[in-house]
Amino acid sequence: MDFRELARKRRSNDHFDPTRQISDHQLEELFEFVALSPSGYDLQPWEFVVVRDPANKARLRACAFNQPKVTDASAMVIVCGSKDPARHAERVFADSVAKGYYTPETGKKSVERVTKWRERSEEENRVWAVRSSALSAMSLLYAACDMGLASCPMEGFEADKVRKEFAIPEGFEVVMLVALGYEAKPNRERRMRRPYSEIVHHEKFRA
Amino acid sequence: MDFRELARKRRSNDHFDPTRQISDHQLEELFEFVALSPSGYDLQPWEFVVVRDPANKARLRACAFNQPKVTDASAMVIVCGSKDPARHAERVFADSVAKGYYTPETGKKSVERVTKWRERSEEENRVWAVRSSALSAMSLLYAACDMGLASCPMEGFEADKVRKEFAIPEGFEVVMLVALGYEAKPNRERRMRRPYSEIVHHEKFRA
Repeated sequence: MDFRELARKRRSNDHFDPTRQISDHQLEELFEFVALSPSGYDLQPWEFVVVRDPANKARLRACAFNQPKVTDASAMVIVCGSKDPARHAERVFADSVAKGYYTPETGKKSVERVTKWRERSEEENRVWAVRSSALSAMSLLYAACDMGLASCPMEGFEADKVRKEFAIPEGFEVVMLVALGYEAKPNRERRMRRPYSEIVHHEKFRA
Repeated sequence: MDFRELARKRRSNDHFDPTRQISDHQLEELFEFVALSPSGYDLQPWEFVVVRDPANKARLRACAFNQPKVTDASAMVIVCGSKDPARHAERVFADSVAKGYYTPETGKKSVERVTKWRERSEEENRVWAVRSSALSAMSLLYAACDMGLASCPMEGFEADKVRKEFAIPEGFEVVMLVALGYEAKPNRERRMRRPYSEIVHHEKFRA
């Protein structure tokens, strides 16, 4: 679908048809576009736990304030982000050197720089993980809409419970949940958006 | 442009043509799509400082490890996020009540809930601000590409310096920079992407 049409059509859906499924093939198609998202230094901290089994969706619903869309959605995606910036550094920079982005020397230095980020505070590395993983989540929302799927990003959940129930290791931030499926009931009118004149500042922040 | 074509075409550009400008009209077009991004509770924490003046781009470059693309880009966007979740709560929930999403009672409770988030740790509210603001940044990257603009998200900058130089108040996180402009030189081959089999976990995290 044309991007402008897609961006105007995409909504956060509240009501999903619980009788419909999402296939492996659909997931593979969807995540092709998610994977093309950018990330800091191309370090791709994202990991996605896709939950389709009804019993597991019920367990996730119990971690998400019992919201019905968690079990009604065809699939729930738990978007996670690695808080270790250097987790994929060696292979990412080796690829960049092979493709001529870096000399072997600057590639080596980049691995070293990113490895040093392990010494930053836990807070900085959480922020780092959320930043790039959220970029990929927005791609997920657009790609889903493009495939005719309804979606809803969700931040109402108890991260520690999600972590425990779905075996998410300590080194990963639970960034958000995304419900995917088929619209059961059309959305109401889109909620207000803060206008251009308010969100865009020219040359400096206009407090 | 068709979304799939757009997602495959969009790249992080390193080289911008310093002779070309971006007009007010282009910015207005671009931010229409940015504003349609989702956010937690529709609270839209995002603010964007658009820097086009050459002297200001030079000041920003000095905050970003002297990267040439900061001055070569036609416009630099400083993506900020409010760390006060309740900043727009009254009007956002009033709109939701008016459109029938909530009863007046649940609207009032929602304002109260979000206002209580002010008591969360600074760290939690930073993560909150980055999460939704990064979603909008991904929309910015797609919308720019759709308009024939090159772009590059950047996390290599000194946030405190950016804050000082561009009068960004303490209550706002500097989430990332986005360079916007015209491609001066085509990109090399796209860097490796972690494959589906690695990033997608089924039913639980596969450590």
